Amino acid sequence: MTQSLPLDITGPHRHRNNSSMLEVADPAWRKASDAGLIGIHVDTPDANNRLVVAETGHEFVNMCSVGYLGLNHHPAVIQGAIDALQEAQATWLVVSTTRIRHNLLVRMEEELGELFGAHVLPGTSCTALTAGILPLIASGHLGDDGQPRVMVFDRYCHFCMSYVKPVCAEETLVLTCDHNDLDQLEKICRQYPRVAYVADGAYSMGGSTALAGLKELQDRYGLFLYIDDSHSLSLVGEHGEGFVRSQLEMNDLTVIVASLGKGFGTGGGIAMLGSRAMFEFLHRHAGPVGWSQNMSLPLVGASLASAAIHRSPELGELQRRLHENIDHFDRVYPTPFAGNGLPVRRITVGEADDAVRLSAELYRRGFYSSAVFFPIVPRGEAGLRIMLRSDLSAEKIDEFADSVKDVIATL
Amino acid sequence: MTQSLPLDITGPHRHRNNSSMLEVADPAWRKASDAGLIGIHVDTPDANNRLVVAETGHEFVNMCSVGYLGLNHHPAVIQGAIDALQEAQATWLVVSTTRIRHNLLVRMEEELGELFGAHVLPGTSCTALTAGILPLIASGHLGDDGQPRVMVFDRYCHFCMSYVKPVCAEETLVLTCDHNDLDQLEKICRQYPRVAYVADGAYSMGGSTALAGLKELQDRYGLFLYIDDSHSLSLVGEHGEGFVRSQLEMNDLTVIVASLGKGFGTGGGIAMLGSRAMFEFLHRHAGPVGWSQNMSLPLVGASLASAAIHRSPELGELQRRLHENIDHFDRVYPTPFAGNGLPVRRITVGEADDAVRLSAELYRRGFYSSAVFFPIVPRGEAGLRIMLRSDLSAEKIDEFADSVKDVIATL
Repeated sequence: MTQSLPLDITGPHRHRNNSSMLEVADPAWRKASDAGLIGIHVDTPDANNRLVVAETGHEFVNMCSVGYLGLNHHPAVIQGAIDALQEAQATWLVVSTTRIRHNLLVRMEEELGELFGAHVLPGTSCTALTAGILPLIASGHLGDDGQPRVMVFDRYCHFCMSYVKPVCAEETLVLTCDHNDLDQLEKICRQYPRVAYVADGAYSMGGSTALAGLKELQDRYGLFLYIDDSHSLSLVGEHGEGFVRSQLEMNDLTVIVASLGKGFGTGGGIAMLGSRAMFEFLHRHAGPVGWSQNMSLPLVGASLASAAIHRSPELGELQRRLHENIDHFDRVYPTPFAGNGLPVRRITVGEADDAVRLSAELYRRGFYSSAVFFPIVPRGEAGLRIMLRSDLSAEKIDEFADSVKDVIATL
Repeated sequence: MTQSLPLDITGPHRHRNNSSMLEVADPAWRKASDAGLIGIHVDTPDANNRLVVAETGHEFVNMCSVGYLGLNHHPAVIQGAIDALQEAQATWLVVSTTRIRHNLLVRMEEELGELFGAHVLPGTSCTALTAGILPLIASGHLGDDGQPRVMVFDRYCHFCMSYVKPVCAEETLVLTCDHNDLDQLEKICRQYPRVAYVADGAYSMGGSTALAGLKELQDRYGLFLYIDDSHSLSLVGEHGEGFVRSQLEMNDLTVIVASLGKGFGTGGGIAMLGSRAMFEFLHRHAGPVGWSQNMSLPLVGASLASAAIHRSPELGELQRRLHENIDHFDRVYPTPFAGNGLPVRRITVGEADDAVRLSAELYRRGFYSSAVFFPIVPRGEAGLRIMLRSDLSAEKIDEFADSVKDVIATL
């Protein structure tokens, strides 16, 4: 075996290159770390709005919590976790959920399925579901005929999806298209009879996918859509079904995945599927879904409680408050994403150094905002990423916006 | 871009092939499903020993729970989860733990670090940690000089590691060696100056890694060791540090990962590292560790409670009971792994059909054992996988062994 091995072991770097990524990213992370913005340790009198550093007494608001509806610290959600622990008297059953599932988990699948109008497959995280599902779409085995599909990844799709490119490339041709470039995507659909597109619904760095155009491509070419809608689940739709699901009927050519650990307020993730057959197939073969952990029972309990809130008028009330806060922020601090109805906003300053300086001074003033830089955002577009929430007060939003203007003027 | 695209999109299948895997595996899974062994839904008067199917009243013992010490249903562990929920009043902080960590999570890192004598990095699962860390070892960036390492995967290493082969192959040469074949591994070390070996400590399908020989190769050639010791954490070692860590000092050429969701009784996973610098580096760059969820606060609280048990004499008592049960089983039902001191046993019958028949009849008699077949075990080695636990009674073990003998005689 060792006879025919190559002298140069360097990989082809078709889909990733740690050296070039680290060369740019690590100095920026180190600067953020030197500025005290990384590895902050807190207690939480209020999990999103009053985080306290015990050693110094410094208190701050978390402007980059993605607990968009405040459900991560809702008393009923906490109580739901406790109830499940008391009922099951176990953290989990310590066995593959392909084989044995606790009735609480089954109930959660059913309730979320009814809420979102889909067959719902849970996993430890959205990342774990994507790792399990994408390669099966690539090889053409998910509700399909076993012939591979060309996998087209949107250039801005989340890390958890682009991570899987080399795995998919074992099964099929993997391409990357420019962000929301439907012309490029259509050209590929014309050239190949079987194509899948991999994208975010609401992008983690702001903006959304070109859904209307995607639906047309699906109708015209049978395009498979794999969309991660983590940043809109719970926030959008009558039952919180999210940006994509609220505008797209489930079918055999669509999989929507979403984290339950953001707007939904708990943890773990789900895949929304078009049929029970897909659910059963993925339960058997979707990698970590079968051979790793699944959602722990306290998170299942928390999710049942969050589902109850999603069925009640409270959801609409929380969504309304969130959208008021988004509109308020857009009025007092307009950014390119203003008016898109989604809660992620970016304040771009250009260079990583300035982004870190801005974030550090805001932190001193009581607001944690995440400095983002390559590879989180493209080179030269460093800045802050912030998220609006329903549990922010208008006064805090004003105070934050004033501080940003104030500090940017000094950069 | 579309001009130069290939006509045949079929991937190279160097490291995986869904079609050939599914061709063998899916019929076996379907048979197990038809026999009622897949997708069982239960309530849990006792999470490992009394699982109840509500619809039929059928009760059974879970002979493939990997809650080896029963800690997944220990009252103190359940209470620890509740305490953390009540203290933090949150499911989690809904922000990357690279940026902000709850003090409970930091306390857990410290306590597990002291317990296991390592710098401890937590993640949502062992799978998530491996996905983040292995590519950085492949490219030579984890406490290293940025030159790639040849990655040698043991043929039997767990799915969660072999899944990452194509990702590592973007950065370096990836090879697969026969199980525990140190001669082959040494030949590769002679040919290349920089090599990493990827393996299980205690294998999920039974047996263990050739640790003494690996230590020699590390001393002689600077071999990097990446070992998943999920199936021995808590069971082995004075403080439950596991099979590998109890015999190997931490150093810059060793990473041990382990699930906290098996013997430890909670959920999530940890990486044991040789230095704080590695911890900080991985916090910035280990993929899902930075951009996905981390352990939820109830699991952190449960883990703090489990850590307290690990510091107390109770751990030794639970380990002693486990080893008594292993010895007892080995006496009443000797298998090839008898006497190895680890809790996984395989009862091989050969063909998947017989494995399913045996498992189904045992289930009828009140014992759930997992029928395992390709690709979980090699072709032609289908059978049962069972796990011994500290919270099994000698009577139940006898009853199980008698039933196995009984049923095998009828196959």
